[in-house]
Amino acid sequence: MTDRVRASRPGGRTARVRSDVLAAVETELAEHEYDGLTIDAVAVRSGVHRTTIYRRWKTVAGLLVDLLEAGADDAWEPADTGSLEGDLIAVNREIHAALTARPSVTQAVIAASFRTTEAAEALTRFWDDRYKRTALLVSRAVERGELPADVDAHQLLLTATAPIYHQLVLLRHPMTRAQADHHARVAAKAFATSRAADLP
Amino acid sequence: MTDRVRASRPGGRTARVRSDVLAAVETELAEHEYDGLTIDAVAVRSGVHRTTIYRRWKTVAGLLVDLLEAGADDAWEPADTGSLEGDLIAVNREIHAALTARPSVTQAVIAASFRTTEAAEALTRFWDDRYKRTALLVSRAVERGELPADVDAHQLLLTATAPIYHQLVLLRHPMTRAQADHHARVAAKAFATSRAADLP
Repeated sequence: MTDRVRASRPGGRTARVRSDVLAAVETELAEHEYDGLTIDAVAVRSGVHRTTIYRRWKTVAGLLVDLLEAGADDAWEPADTGSLEGDLIAVNREIHAALTARPSVTQAVIAASFRTTEAAEALTRFWDDRYKRTALLVSRAVERGELPADVDAHQLLLTATAPIYHQLVLLRHPMTRAQADHHARVAAKAFATSRAADLP
Repeated sequence: MTDRVRASRPGGRTARVRSDVLAAVETELAEHEYDGLTIDAVAVRSGVHRTTIYRRWKTVAGLLVDLLEAGADDAWEPADTGSLEGDLIAVNREIHAALTARPSVTQAVIAASFRTTEAAEALTRFWDDRYKRTALLVSRAVERGELPADVDAHQLLLTATAPIYHQLVLLRHPMTRAQADHHARVAAKAFATSRAADLP
């Protein structure tokens, strides 16, 4: 994209400042990781004045949250593979890729969420939106008769996805993509084969 | 426990300094939460000189890690209730209680683990030890014929326990004890009813 095209699109200079700053955040994150990320370095790399960055994003956490939100496709919804297991595997592969990317914006925002309330609240909002959208794959499975109508969508999604976060973020150990797939299968099987009446 | 009794037990003054300091950490944590915890405040409350605390524990993270380790019973092993589901429910209730306690030492150490490498490594060691011990309940279930001999104990324990951590620590939403029980049942059912050959 040339400068002329960028300058003429909706949003104009403001949008361009944002994209330049966020590109700089991502590069700085890759080179220095979260602990080495500073607003001054982002200013130098983006060519945007530091006072502009402080005014708009306030903190490093604010920059990271905006990067997370900018990377989130507004039209995102879970892939429709035709089966509950396939849909859950697709979701788990996205989560696995996001957490094992180098740099991982998600891992950086998680770290930021333990330092500032602003980042914690933004991350909670982001995940609330994502889990809500992901529940679509549960409704589709109910319509296909793969799941009981009264299945608890959130508990099912936790069963599939939580092990990836726990292993990679909190336990701080590796997890292969095959293991992430495995947890999708476990969730599909556990909820599909159990009558809801068995579970509280 | 009276001072006389404390002073006469093995370890003597060193052990007493440790117990006084850790008791002060717990009280300060309850009153000010993790972000308000300082070595100076712990020194004032415990009556132990701050230079002694700095020499032995170095940082607030060091104090929290020691509190976590002191609270961990060296003889801990998972309760033997006679069934896989019962054993997993007991473990999940311990995790749920630890994460919803006010103050939660576990939550404070998790927050510290995103600030210092020392706390992150100590937490990983602590959980490695706990998950290794908890695997005993899987061996017992295999012996009883409830699980296939080649079951992946760690993946089973992740299925049961990870949803509690994910919901309470990362998603930052409530989870009831009944929901924690539910995830124990899901794990017991998913692994008991599936042949290992079905899963990667």
